[in-house]
Amino acid sequence: MTAAWRGFASDNYAAPHPDVLAAVAAATAGHAAAYGGDDVTARLEAAVKREFGPTAEAFPMFNGTGANVVALASLIRGRGAVVCAETAHVHVDEGGAPEAIAGIKLWTVATADGRLTPALVDTQAWGFDDVHRARPAVVSITQSTELGTVYAPTEIRALADQAHARGMRLHVDGARLANAAASLGVSLGGITSALGVDAVTFGGTKNGALGAEAVIVFDPETAEAVRRLRKTFGQLPSKMRFISAQLLALLEGGLWQRNASHANAMAARLAAAVGGIPGVSIVRPVQANAVFAVLPAEVTARLQSRHRFYTWNQATGEVRWMCSWDTTPADIDAFAADIARESAA
Amino acid sequence: MTAAWRGFASDNYAAPHPDVLAAVAAATAGHAAAYGGDDVTARLEAAVKREFGPTAEAFPMFNGTGANVVALASLIRGRGAVVCAETAHVHVDEGGAPEAIAGIKLWTVATADGRLTPALVDTQAWGFDDVHRARPAVVSITQSTELGTVYAPTEIRALADQAHARGMRLHVDGARLANAAASLGVSLGGITSALGVDAVTFGGTKNGALGAEAVIVFDPETAEAVRRLRKTFGQLPSKMRFISAQLLALLEGGLWQRNASHANAMAARLAAAVGGIPGVSIVRPVQANAVFAVLPAEVTARLQSRHRFYTWNQATGEVRWMCSWDTTPADIDAFAADIARESAA
Amino acid sequence: MTAAWRGFASDNYAAPHPDVLAAVAAATAGHAAAYGGDDVTARLEAAVKREFGPTAEAFPMFNGTGANVVALASLIRGRGAVVCAETAHVHVDEGGAPEAIAGIKLWTVATADGRLTPALVDTQAWGFDDVHRARPAVVSITQSTELGTVYAPTEIRALADQAHARGMRLHVDGARLANAAASLGVSLGGITSALGVDAVTFGGTKNGALGAEAVIVFDPETAEAVRRLRKTFGQLPSKMRFISAQLLALLEGGLWQRNASHANAMAARLAAAVGGIPGVSIVRPVQANAVFAVLPAEVTARLQSRHRFYTWNQATGEVRWMCSWDTTPADIDAFAADIARESAA
Amino acid sequence: MTAAWRGFASDNYAAPHPDVLAAVAAATAGHAAAYGGDDVTARLEAAVKREFGPTAEAFPMFNGTGANVVALASLIRGRGAVVCAETAHVHVDEGGAPEAIAGIKLWTVATADGRLTPALVDTQAWGFDDVHRARPAVVSITQSTELGTVYAPTEIRALADQAHARGMRLHVDGARLANAAASLGVSLGGITSALGVDAVTFGGTKNGALGAEAVIVFDPETAEAVRRLRKTFGQLPSKMRFISAQLLALLEGGLWQRNASHANAMAARLAAAVGGIPGVSIVRPVQANAVFAVLPAEVTARLQSRHRFYTWNQATGEVRWMCSWDTTPADIDAFAADIARESAA
Repeated sequence: MTAAWRGFASDNYAAPHPDVLAAVAAATAGHAAAYGGDDVTARLEAAVKREFGPTAEAFPMFNGTGANVVALASLIRGRGAVVCAETAHVHVDEGGAPEAIAGIKLWTVATADGRLTPALVDTQAWGFDDVHRARPAVVSITQSTELGTVYAPTEIRALADQAHARGMRLHVDGARLANAAASLGVSLGGITSALGVDAVTFGGTKNGALGAEAVIVFDPETAEAVRRLRKTFGQLPSKMRFISAQLLALLEGGLWQRNASHANAMAARLAAAVGGIPGVSIVRPVQANAVFAVLPAEVTARLQSRHRFYTWNQATGEVRWMCSWDTTPADIDAFAADIARESAA
Repeated sequence: MTAAWRGFASDNYAAPHPDVLAAVAAATAGHAAAYGGDDVTARLEAAVKREFGPTAEAFPMFNGTGANVVALASLIRGRGAVVCAETAHVHVDEGGAPEAIAGIKLWTVATADGRLTPALVDTQAWGFDDVHRARPAVVSITQSTELGTVYAPTEIRALADQAHARGMRLHVDGARLANAAASLGVSLGGITSALGVDAVTFGGTKNGALGAEAVIVFDPETAEAVRRLRKTFGQLPSKMRFISAQLLALLEGGLWQRNASHANAMAARLAAAVGGIPGVSIVRPVQANAVFAVLPAEVTARLQSRHRFYTWNQATGEVRWMCSWDTTPADIDAFAADIARESAA
Repeated sequence: MTAAWRGFASDNYAAPHPDVLAAVAAATAGHAAAYGGDDVTARLEAAVKREFGPTAEAFPMFNGTGANVVALASLIRGRGAVVCAETAHVHVDEGGAPEAIAGIKLWTVATADGRLTPALVDTQAWGFDDVHRARPAVVSITQSTELGTVYAPTEIRALADQAHARGMRLHVDGARLANAAASLGVSLGGITSALGVDAVTFGGTKNGALGAEAVIVFDPETAEAVRRLRKTFGQLPSKMRFISAQLLALLEGGLWQRNASHANAMAARLAAAVGGIPGVSIVRPVQANAVFAVLPAEVTARLQSRHRFYTWNQATGEVRWMCSWDTTPADIDAFAADIARESAA
Repeated sequence: MTAAWRGFASDNYAAPHPDVLAAVAAATAGHAAAYGGDDVTARLEAAVKREFGPTAEAFPMFNGTGANVVALASLIRGRGAVVCAETAHVHVDEGGAPEAIAGIKLWTVATADGRLTPALVDTQAWGFDDVHRARPAVVSITQSTELGTVYAPTEIRALADQAHARGMRLHVDGARLANAAASLGVSLGGITSALGVDAVTFGGTKNGALGAEAVIVFDPETAEAVRRLRKTFGQLPSKMRFISAQLLALLEGGLWQRNASHANAMAARLAAAVGGIPGVSIVRPVQANAVFAVLPAEVTARLQSRHRFYTWNQATGEVRWMCSWDTTPADIDAFAADIARESAA
């Protein structure tokens, strides 16, 4: 494939948004104090407070794996376990990082569509006083989920209330938080801090950044823990201004919302375009920027020779098509046409 | 201080070189496979082989703390200890990362000027068969050192030979490897792979990048370990092309060498300019881009009200002045004049 | 309850066998080299070779949690994951030790009766080359299982072959290995080393010891790893002779076999005695020294006011009755009579 | 050497005291709840409160390495560092356990005789707010020290006050606490809890046990941390009654004191007997049960062919002679005579 191709493999295959690149370039003048003592980071901190509320403290980091581990370890502080869905990125896709570098045990729960519920959490959130059982200390959910579904605000509020009632904290892995907020038509704070969430990993990378995430927390003790642990876990950027500039570009002026809404709309367009093709079944609710479909293995094989996307489940023939801020209607229409053509072949 | 100030606090206060920024911008067209499956990373890998030899494998990472831990853990594989100088960045400046996230013990050695010698290493490299003593598995040196000194090639060769004779490996924390190579007038490979070094943390950030490091190793087993551990330790960039582009810009066309040589020259200019000022003593050999000086506390205090730099040792009055690729002769001359003025006040 | 009561809560509630105590007493004369350099440990090593084969190396340790972690970490060496049943003691009952102190991820599998099969293992043993997925390095099974079932030799052989075919190793958590071997009528080596098992945690504590376990491995590289890691993980007894003496007493003269056979027989007697009581259902095959039964909650409550045993599953009313080497036929008969009486009440 | 030899290599070469063995035997009747829910452990807890004060909570464990790690991790709770002497057992003799299994960094300090002072602690206890520096959270001292010296109560009080003033905690590695208390003529609580110590690792093994240690802490939060972490770190004995019985035997009736006093007296006798021998220099104050001497290498070699003891420092010819509760005056006199004979040869 040539240099400027576009595909449906992952939203981190996407280019950065030009405004993000421009913001980084604008931050390059002169020297700046390292490790966050710079003006851009100060502006980001203010923007995060506007978006997530006055108690929000933002800690820019490099990537999702690192940010998630720092967030979870900061919520736990000592030793403890995290309740999460069996499909959670922290469980299946981070190279065992929570266990290997933070010693965290994951208590996993099978779900229908990637979403935990209070009842599902309770299948693992017990035995708090039993020293033989790793203490459930945090519930971690992914919003939007790894299966392209979105938690409603009331669902998150219920999970937060339940977690707190059991002495636990609620973490949101928000690698695609923007897609969820855009899908729900609410602010980023409106689906996190406003609902009792204790820590958010806010993803910029899949939302149009070059590579930028932030852990956002809402109480001073957790903030102090993050402040320390991000260094220890290798997530304290020395030239932080260039990470902060990316996040600021996304937050200021609502770019995060436009990017996410567009990606979501492209997923909806794709689902609509292929949903009626014989042999193609859309198998998950399309609530954010992902489309999960089942199609015949030979059709998938022919399509993958020309288009990049992942087979999600070899056994069932389920594939995943991710849309991003830079997916165009023309991309969708061409891809859908190809799916139709190959399905008919 | 205004937006475009320049100071002497750290070379990671410096701006990125325009060519680095341009390279990142050039890498933004279209989609690219994540996690290193992109064209820019392929070009970087080729460039690293040219610079460090045909067995070199490069793994772009986010920052020095993370890259150092991945490198050390990959060399050790199981459990073990690292022999390093008491002043080593991994010991004193990384928030306890080697211990906390990789379980590595550091056996530290006091040094005169930040440089280990075979004899100094041997004060800790013993007891290999004693299970009560954490097994010394790696020697880690910093080049150029935290004290601005530079190991000669023969010194590194001697350390590598000694490490290998004892069944250990040699790691170079090269956050400022470019400054050392430029100082010695040799290639990057000429002071590492050519001398038996087993793993290098090559620093781009302080050499003119926005934020980019690479772990470079020379045997397939260590490479395989790095390939895995960088994910687990949160150092696998998803949009890797933008990290690779920075490193490639530094390596291609010798930008690393020009940037480092300039920074070194500025340090030499500063040392020359202030060395004769009454009350100011240059207390370390100026071999790279750092100048360490002792001056009266009240002079330091007055200077720090207008210039950014760190007091290195409160007790002795030693200060550190770092020069970077964007330090100008005019910066030096103005600063030196101010030092002279305040010293005479 | 008075000092000399006996119950069915756990086989580690049991007293030590008098021969074990006598062996410890016999080992107390004079001084002995610490950390295993004593005569008793030498005799234990010989006994283990007789029982487990000439390549077997035994490492006496304090308890099962520690021994399991040392065994798993020694098999993995670097970083990696362990495939185990959802009910595995290492997963649910060791306070998160594998994750917290060894950084090991557990890939768990739901089972019908606590036993893994090659097909079940394959639901998690995949993605070996995918750095995003913690590498499955070891399969860990419990023999006899936490549910009182026993793997047949052919089943273990099949698991070992499959593990090896995938580049993995097979670990047996043998806290009750003696009960399994006695149940099958084979030697301890006959259900481990002879079938391709790579490491065994052999439990003495539940077999009549005061407190003694051993990790037994069969290749020099793993042995060397155990030799080191048992110290680092706090499982190297200084006065090792007193741990070794216990294990030696169990292995010499077949005491392990007699103790285990008796406990198994008592479980069979209990199952036979209560299986026909209306309202009491034996819900797991009784293959070792545990009986799992479902009975009405109010019957359980009345029984627990006089007898010690655990409710295994609050929701289903399943209880666990463990028999031990010192359970007597009279204990069983009296207990069974009480169950009958309370069930009829 | 024959079965009933006695030497001077280590106090953990010694036999257990008969009263300890008798106490274990006495605890073997019938069943007992596991993990500390037994009568013997209850009696131990009461005895510890009598000895260490009413806030003392005791947690019996297997060995010193494990107990030290649990104690330190419980005091730190999150992530942090420990300030200790360069000669501390936790630093040089525990296989890197604090780093490897608890992620703890050790900030070490060179000392004259194994004892820290407030001034020495301050060389490492700084930078509490600097995230680049692993936070000093605990001061750990060994009493009596690895060099056979003893902290005076006023010295411990000063260290506790200083630690608390800096927001740190004070841990005492008391593998030989009994020897120190006996040497000073104070109670065990009198040199720990009464002086502000926050956690003690109390060693029974070297004081006449088969193998038994206890972590003793004085505030509910640390106690809760120990309660959990001892399980996770593999230091929760299932048949705890047999560990508790040993410690109880030492504490009840002052056996600890008699054992320790005797061992100390034997060391004093040895020092007195050999101090005047030409060529033999006693090089450390003999304050507990260890004698450190320098003698000619060839004399050492000849002695070691018949007597077990360790060369402490190959370079200086320093040897260590440890006395234990079962060292007899005849042992000392015969050994001293042999030293005199070989020195004259």
